[in-house]
Amino acid sequence: MADRHRVVILGGGFGGLYAAKALKRAPVDLTVIDRRNYHLFQPLMYQVATGSLSPGEIAAPIRGVLNRQKNTRVLLGEVVDIDPVAKEVSLKDGATCPYDSLIVATGSKTAYFGHDDWSKWAPSLKSVEEATMIRHKILVAFEAAERSADPAERKAWMTFVIVGAGATGVELAGALGEIAHRTLKHDFRSINPADARILLVDAGSRILPTYPETLSRKAVKSLERLGATIRTGMMVTEIDAEGVTVKDDAGHERIAARTVIWAAGVAMSDFGRQLAQRTNAEVLKPGRIRVNPNLTIPNFPDIFVIGDLAYATKPDGTLLPGVAQVAIQGGAYAAKTILKRMKGQRDSKPFHYFDKGDLAVIGRGAAVANIFGFQLSGFPAWLVWLFIHLMYIVEFQSRLLVFIEWGFLYLTSNRGAMLITGSAGSKSLNESKPLQMTAHD
Amino acid sequence: MADRHRVVILGGGFGGLYAAKALKRAPVDLTVIDRRNYHLFQPLMYQVATGSLSPGEIAAPIRGVLNRQKNTRVLLGEVVDIDPVAKEVSLKDGATCPYDSLIVATGSKTAYFGHDDWSKWAPSLKSVEEATMIRHKILVAFEAAERSADPAERKAWMTFVIVGAGATGVELAGALGEIAHRTLKHDFRSINPADARILLVDAGSRILPTYPETLSRKAVKSLERLGATIRTGMMVTEIDAEGVTVKDDAGHERIAARTVIWAAGVAMSDFGRQLAQRTNAEVLKPGRIRVNPNLTIPNFPDIFVIGDLAYATKPDGTLLPGVAQVAIQGGAYAAKTILKRMKGQRDSKPFHYFDKGDLAVIGRGAAVANIFGFQLSGFPAWLVWLFIHLMYIVEFQSRLLVFIEWGFLYLTSNRGAMLITGSAGSKSLNESKPLQMTAHD
Repeated sequence: MADRHRVVILGGGFGGLYAAKALKRAPVDLTVIDRRNYHLFQPLMYQVATGSLSPGEIAAPIRGVLNRQKNTRVLLGEVVDIDPVAKEVSLKDGATCPYDSLIVATGSKTAYFGHDDWSKWAPSLKSVEEATMIRHKILVAFEAAERSADPAERKAWMTFVIVGAGATGVELAGALGEIAHRTLKHDFRSINPADARILLVDAGSRILPTYPETLSRKAVKSLERLGATIRTGMMVTEIDAEGVTVKDDAGHERIAARTVIWAAGVAMSDFGRQLAQRTNAEVLKPGRIRVNPNLTIPNFPDIFVIGDLAYATKPDGTLLPGVAQVAIQGGAYAAKTILKRMKGQRDSKPFHYFDKGDLAVIGRGAAVANIFGFQLSGFPAWLVWLFIHLMYIVEFQSRLLVFIEWGFLYLTSNRGAMLITGSAGSKSLNESKPLQMTAHD
Repeated sequence: MADRHRVVILGGGFGGLYAAKALKRAPVDLTVIDRRNYHLFQPLMYQVATGSLSPGEIAAPIRGVLNRQKNTRVLLGEVVDIDPVAKEVSLKDGATCPYDSLIVATGSKTAYFGHDDWSKWAPSLKSVEEATMIRHKILVAFEAAERSADPAERKAWMTFVIVGAGATGVELAGALGEIAHRTLKHDFRSINPADARILLVDAGSRILPTYPETLSRKAVKSLERLGATIRTGMMVTEIDAEGVTVKDDAGHERIAARTVIWAAGVAMSDFGRQLAQRTNAEVLKPGRIRVNPNLTIPNFPDIFVIGDLAYATKPDGTLLPGVAQVAIQGGAYAAKTILKRMKGQRDSKPFHYFDKGDLAVIGRGAAVANIFGFQLSGFPAWLVWLFIHLMYIVEFQSRLLVFIEWGFLYLTSNRGAMLITGSAGSKSLNESKPLQMTAHD
C-alpha cells in the first residue's frame, strides 16, 4: 500500500467527483477532500431557492457516492494552503496531506464587484444555506405584503430584483414568475401574487449573452409571458436593505425592493489565490489560473487545475465557460493523464472541450437550448433540458425523486418545499412596522 | 360579510389544521394564525433528524393546504397575548385580531427539567431547525471520529446518548442503529460505524411506558439487535459539551459523548401560560390548562383548548397523551361545537377521545403497535405503521414522495438527505484539536 501513487483531489463538485470516478479501479491511493460532506447538483440550485426541491434532493453525500471505491478515502476539511515543492496541501485544522498527483477542482466564489457588503442584502446561489435563505426571503416577502397596509411598502415587498441575466438569473426569474402567477395564485386574501414585479437587471446588452441571439430574444418573450421585466444595459451601483440603485445612459434610478438576488459575477476563491501565489502561476480575469494545454500549472506537471479555477481556452482562444460539462471533462482528462503517466506512457493530447451546448429553462414547459448547434426553444427545449439534467444527477435515488417532484410541479404548480426556515439576512417579518390587522376585508 | 361569526384558530399543527378543515364550508370568517408558514408532520421529525427525509417532505405550507377555503385567511405571526373579555388576541408585532370563537392549538414546548442550558448540547425534535441540527451533529460525529487519532476522543465522538425512551426516543435510537450498521457501512476507512455506542437513557423503569409491557420488551429486543443499549432507571443530572452525567441507585456515572439528543419532557408554552393567567384557568402538570368536558376554558365558553395544551382526560381520569390523534379529534370536536351553537343547537356531548392505538417504528421493517387492543410487533407492525402514517400525511405530494423515499431506504439502506448544512450548537469539526492526518492507513 505504502508506495502506491497518491492522488489527492480537492473539491467534490462535478470536476472532482468525475475525476475520482475515473480512478475507480486504478492502483492509486486516492483522497478526496471537501469542506462539505455532499456533492451538490449546482445547476438545480435555483429550484431549491424557489421552493421546488429540497436541498436533499439535489445533493448526494460524497462518501456515499464513492463508498465502493476501496482505493478512496474521503476527508471532510477545508484546504487552505499548498506546498508545491514538498508536495502537500494543508487543512484549516493544521492537518497536512501529501500527494504525488494533485487535481484542484475547488471552483469559484461569488463576486460582488468589490462591494462585499452587498452580499448581506443580495444572497447568491453558491451554497445550500444561501439558496435556503433566498427561499426564505421570497416567501416572507409575500407574507409581509399580505399584511402591509401601506401601498408603497407593499410594492417594495412585492418587487424582486435579480442581478445578472446569465442562465442562473434567467432561470430564477422564470421560477419566480411561476410562483407569482401559478403556485401562490389562491394563497392570499389581501394581495394578488401576480402583481409581483420581477426585474431582471444586467449591465450587458442582452440576456443569456453566451447563447445565439435568436434564443436570447425567445427567452425574453418567455420571461415576459411570466410577468418578468428585463432591464439590460443597467449597472447596479448600490444595494441596501430598502432596494437597489441602477444606472444607465439616462442616469440613476432607485428601485424599492425588499428582495434582491445576486446572479452576477464569480471570482477566485481564497485557496485559488494561494495556489497561484505558491506556484507563481499567472492569474487572468475573471480570477482563473492560466494552465498548460494539459491542464497542469506551468512548472508543476503534477498539479492539474480543472473547472472554474482553470483558465483554459477553446481552439479559438475564448475562455471555457464555468459550466458542469467543462469540469466533468476536465476531471476525466486529468485522471486519464495521471494513469497514462503511471504506465510510463506519454501524456494525452491537449485537453479538448467537447461543447454539447447550452440550456436554460424558463418556467413550466419552456426553455431555450443550443444543442450540438441546433437551436431549440419552448416545450421541445424543456424536454431536452429535463432529460439531460436527470441523466446527470449523480445518484439514482435523487434522480427519481426529482423527476417525480417535477412531474407534480408540472401538473399542479404545487411546489413541495415552500418552507420558511432559519433566518434571512434581511429585515424579517417581525421587524417590519406593526400594523392594525382587520379580520374582515 | 362583516357580521359573520369570526373564528380564530391559533396554531397550524394537527389540531388547528383539522379544525380549519372542518369549517371549510361553514358561514364563518376563519383566520388561522401560526408563526410558521408550514404544517409539520411531527411524528416523522426523527426521520429528518436521521437523514431519511428532507424537511420539505414532512411539511406542507399552511396557505397551500387551506387555499381553496374561501372563508379562510392565513396569518403568519406569533400570538403573544389575549384579552378574553374584549375577545381579541394580539401578535408580537402589535397587531390584534378579534374573535367570536377561539380555538387554541398552540401545542407545547420542550422542557429540560429546569436546566434550559442543556438545550445547547442536547437539541430536541420540536422544530425543523433542531432536527437539521441533530442531523448535522450525528454526521459530523462520524466524520470527526474518522479523523481522530486519540482513542478516547474517537469513542466520545462515536457515543450517542438519547434522553427519554418514549416513542420519539425509541424511534431515534432505532434510526441511529440503522445508520451505524447499514447506511454508513462502507463509508469510512479508519472507523467502523458499527462500533458506535447508542445509549437510550430514561428515568422510568421501562421504555415505551404507555405501551403494554410485552411490547416494551419486544422493542428492547429490536433495539438491541440494532446495537443500541437501553439504560432505564437512570436520571440525567448534567449535560455539557463533553457528555452526560447520569445517576441511578448505584451512584453517578459519567458518559463521554459528543452527541446528545433530548427526547424527554414537554412544558407549557409562553402563550399557554399567558392564556391561563388571563382566564384564571387552572394549570396542571405537565403544564396543561384544565378544560371543561367540552374542551372550553371554565367561564370562557368561546375559548376552546385542544391538543397538547389541554388537560382533558379519558373516562378513567387519566390524561390524554400528547399525540396527533388527540389534537385531530379535539379540533374536529371544537369546530363541530361552534357550528352547532351558530345554528342555535345545544352543545355536543362531552369530547370523547377515540383511542386508535399506539405505534413506534424501530429500524427497517420492525415496529411495535397496539392497535384497537391488538398487539403487533416486527414486520406486520411496521406495515401498519407505514400505512397509517402515509394516510395521515396531509398533502398528497408529500405522501407519494415519502413513500418512495422509504421504498428506497428499505431496499438499499441509502438515506436521501444526509447533508451537513448550517451549523450545530456544539463543538464542530473545525474546532476540534488539530491532528496529523496520515494518508496511508
